[in-house]
Amino acid sequence: MQIAVLLYDRFTTLDAVGPYELLARLPGAETVFVAKEAGPVRNDQGSLALVADRSLAEVPRPDIVLVPGGPDARVAMHDRETLDWLRTADATSTWTTSVCTGSLILASAGLLKDRRATTHWLAFDELRALGVEPTGERVVFDGKYVTAAGVSSGIDMALHLLGRIAGDETAQTIQLLTEYDPQPPYDAGSPEKAPAAIVARWRSVRTEDLPQGS
Amino acid sequence: MQIAVLLYDRFTTLDAVGPYELLARLPGAETVFVAKEAGPVRNDQGSLALVADRSLAEVPRPDIVLVPGGPDARVAMHDRETLDWLRTADATSTWTTSVCTGSLILASAGLLKDRRATTHWLAFDELRALGVEPTGERVVFDGKYVTAAGVSSGIDMALHLLGRIAGDETAQTIQLLTEYDPQPPYDAGSPEKAPAAIVARWRSVRTEDLPQGS
Repeated sequence: MQIAVLLYDRFTTLDAVGPYELLARLPGAETVFVAKEAGPVRNDQGSLALVADRSLAEVPRPDIVLVPGGPDARVAMHDRETLDWLRTADATSTWTTSVCTGSLILASAGLLKDRRATTHWLAFDELRALGVEPTGERVVFDGKYVTAAGVSSGIDMALHLLGRIAGDETAQTIQLLTEYDPQPPYDAGSPEKAPAAIVARWRSVRTEDLPQGS
Repeated sequence: MQIAVLLYDRFTTLDAVGPYELLARLPGAETVFVAKEAGPVRNDQGSLALVADRSLAEVPRPDIVLVPGGPDARVAMHDRETLDWLRTADATSTWTTSVCTGSLILASAGLLKDRRATTHWLAFDELRALGVEPTGERVVFDGKYVTAAGVSSGIDMALHLLGRIAGDETAQTIQLLTEYDPQPPYDAGSPEKAPAAIVARWRSVRTEDLPQGS
């Protein structure tokens, strides 16, 4: 079982690392971070680089593909080499997954046609513009395609995936070892729950001005 | 406001990246990953390296210190250079924080003496051996010292900290933008909630055989 996590300039770190932390604990899994070229890839905030150990060409047939989001998902979704790699990897993958605006890249590669999917709540219109209606769920399964909402939702996606791949006990074990027993001090994690004034302020921001990670 | 995230060999990635993703969005904050030497630092699972942009010596007076855990926290907690840096940074920090077994390093540096603190549930005995009684809470504040439980708990810690530093509205905004509205498909994230057989199996593992990230 090979898991490939795609990195590209200005990816959002937790989109990649959240699900990675859980999925990589799958017994027997080999996880590899990939990018167009092997080497450090800097994130959206500019203050952290993750090392892609392999180039895309070196990892042509992963079992699980994971595509994080990021403000430059809008760039990656027009990059021919990235899209070609995704289509090739998807042809043999067991699971093709994304977090946040990573689904814009999958959609741009043509992989979400006629599928149920989601993205960050601030990117719903962009997903629609690619012909995919966002479901508004936090984690969406449609066959082997799994898409998650914004940033932190990839952790929930990983637990769902672990359950499907290895069974409830393995998923629960990994939840226990990562002590994923969320206790946020606020209940503002979705546009339905957050204070209306905050939601309205961000909805009024033009897409191209969206904050890091959205 | 400078936030320093300490990296050391075989750190647990989400311990560092979970709180980083939220804290780095604090308006005006500068976040920097530090290690004994600048450059890539490989994680506990071996499949990912994060780049420390600065050496410890280059970042002597961060406002927030964040220490992740990892299986080799037991090595770092005996490393003189790391402990010296922590004591120096702590002398002027506004907040000194840890996730998971990172608190073993803080305790070893003498920073948690007579303080309330916590760690990963499998490391309670080790924290006790350093003279600190784990509280069992997910996030523990004692003055400027903030310690969180295992791996994913650093995200909750970051939200608490954001509220204290910048107020509820900023914290809620960052929760909304990272869409931190947890919906795990299992309720097995703590030893009190997970199936008893799984908990018992891990409790019987010798400390030195503990899994990655615990």
